[in-house]
Amino acid sequence: MSYYIGIDLGGTNVKALAIDQNGSILAERHIKTEAEFGSEHVISRMASLIIDMKKKLAADVTAVGVTVPGVLGSEYSVVELMPNFPDQWKGIPLKRKMEELLNTPVYLMNDARAATYGEKKFGAAKNFKDFIYIVIGTGVGGGIMQNGKLLLGSRGVAGEIGHQVIEPKGVLCGCGNHGCLETVASGSAISSAALRFIRQGMPTIMRDYVNNDLNKITPELVTKAAYAGDKPAIEIMEGTAAHLTTTIRNLMALLNPEAIVFGGGVSKSEVLFDLISKKLHEEEILFPSSLGSVQLIRSEFDHFAGAIGIAAWAMDQHNDKNRSE
Amino acid sequence: MSYYIGIDLGGTNVKALAIDQNGSILAERHIKTEAEFGSEHVISRMASLIIDMKKKLAADVTAVGVTVPGVLGSEYSVVELMPNFPDQWKGIPLKRKMEELLNTPVYLMNDARAATYGEKKFGAAKNFKDFIYIVIGTGVGGGIMQNGKLLLGSRGVAGEIGHQVIEPKGVLCGCGNHGCLETVASGSAISSAALRFIRQGMPTIMRDYVNNDLNKITPELVTKAAYAGDKPAIEIMEGTAAHLTTTIRNLMALLNPEAIVFGGGVSKSEVLFDLISKKLHEEEILFPSSLGSVQLIRSEFDHFAGAIGIAAWAMDQHNDKNRSE
Repeated sequence: MSYYIGIDLGGTNVKALAIDQNGSILAERHIKTEAEFGSEHVISRMASLIIDMKKKLAADVTAVGVTVPGVLGSEYSVVELMPNFPDQWKGIPLKRKMEELLNTPVYLMNDARAATYGEKKFGAAKNFKDFIYIVIGTGVGGGIMQNGKLLLGSRGVAGEIGHQVIEPKGVLCGCGNHGCLETVASGSAISSAALRFIRQGMPTIMRDYVNNDLNKITPELVTKAAYAGDKPAIEIMEGTAAHLTTTIRNLMALLNPEAIVFGGGVSKSEVLFDLISKKLHEEEILFPSSLGSVQLIRSEFDHFAGAIGIAAWAMDQHNDKNRSE
Repeated sequence: MSYYIGIDLGGTNVKALAIDQNGSILAERHIKTEAEFGSEHVISRMASLIIDMKKKLAADVTAVGVTVPGVLGSEYSVVELMPNFPDQWKGIPLKRKMEELLNTPVYLMNDARAATYGEKKFGAAKNFKDFIYIVIGTGVGGGIMQNGKLLLGSRGVAGEIGHQVIEPKGVLCGCGNHGCLETVASGSAISSAALRFIRQGMPTIMRDYVNNDLNKITPELVTKAAYAGDKPAIEIMEGTAAHLTTTIRNLMALLNPEAIVFGGGVSKSEVLFDLISKKLHEEEILFPSSLGSVQLIRSEFDHFAGAIGIAAWAMDQHNDKNRSE
């Protein structure tokens, strides 16, 4: 039996999936990242997790993929930047280290790009050659599939949809720019907007939902309030949808996709999805209509998109390499 | 001798170039388009121009390329939309018509995409695999080269940089959106801004340049005034540069190019080029710095970029087709 393991390395959790060549899931696991104990600790935890899965599956894994929430250098083998991890990760030859521990080929890719690849290979975008994946969670990420190929750019960091400047005079983003999409249309932005309304004393059902404990405000809760007809919540979701629609229009003019695939927790909101769909299709815009209609669809994989995507990436990279040798 | 003719079909002029396989120019011509006499008239003018060039070169042309300032359908053979031409162009099977008149293979491509291709094949971007071409003339257009391939999108209309919304509450664009880059950073936008300043009675050297004849205001003149230290002109160029810089930052985050290639009359302005370069490199932005520096370069072909680009496109399309047959 040939199988492939995909590891999705996140700041809080490490998720792992084993899949066969058809994308069927053979095993899944998740553990805490324990990033605070440093890179060597996390790397050895990932290796142990894979060894455990191999034992359980009683067969040797053909190739392993690991997502990196950041930028990779040296042909996708060395960590160059992992903004939400300690600095000591910079320069870590993660591919070589994992290969030494596992004695198995390891392939790395940025997490959002891996998820995009997975949607094409086994997921919601199987039938599209040109699509854009937008993941709206705590932040906003994405990936671009162009003519059936993952668009990587000169250094593998193409697809940073969250860092499209949408309000040039807007608030400072973590990246150093002002008014990035992530500052106005992410899970964090939705929660912050709700907190602002509540602190201003605006009457809203959201305050009752959390019993005045403002730490409990989440994007899901804002969505729920909007669905129930709460005006401030509706205003927040309308604003979020407007920013996302502007960005999608820009992406349509720039990349001419057949479909937009939405992933991430926030995008599961029916309210948000319906608002974007309505804004995109109802407003009479000459240009995009000449580009043909764009389908809006949802990710098939939910929070396992990164793990299944990187497993698929490792599978195809490995097979391509073996074919060319 | 093998040679290729590229025809750049514009609203006012038709430009033609004959090149050999190394991109050396063997002949060049230009004639008025006479678009007001309809599509059949223009098509027969283009065919006559090519027949003339063939006679002069005393050899048969291997393939012909024609740019289309709009959208093509049916695998780049039929005109779908040509916004600045009469409606009757819609649906014209331009490839078949030209092939019948010339008895030579004809290849069509959008004008800005063809120019992008030419910069890669024979021009300023020969050494780059990932770059973005931005042409700033009366309007703003562009093209994207990704991993050495022209990025076309699902229907060949990718690269519409001029229709990136940069001011969501901005003025109405011809495309139906509000605040597209073209509305704030094109030759037309620069001239309009100058006229507004003059009409408001702002003291400016620009009024003297045109002897109070406001029809004579051009982007070149605004540039000249900015260079001479005229405050309103400097303010206009600063604003134009700021909008272009925001767009370039977005393109960097989205597509991770090695270089930006500037073409078109307005981009020849030293003032504008220097302002963009300064803004991009001086402001401390965490994100783009992690992406590596982007080189800003100028088009090599000036107003012949479309003609040489479409000749190169026809050459490569023709050779690819013959190889695969």
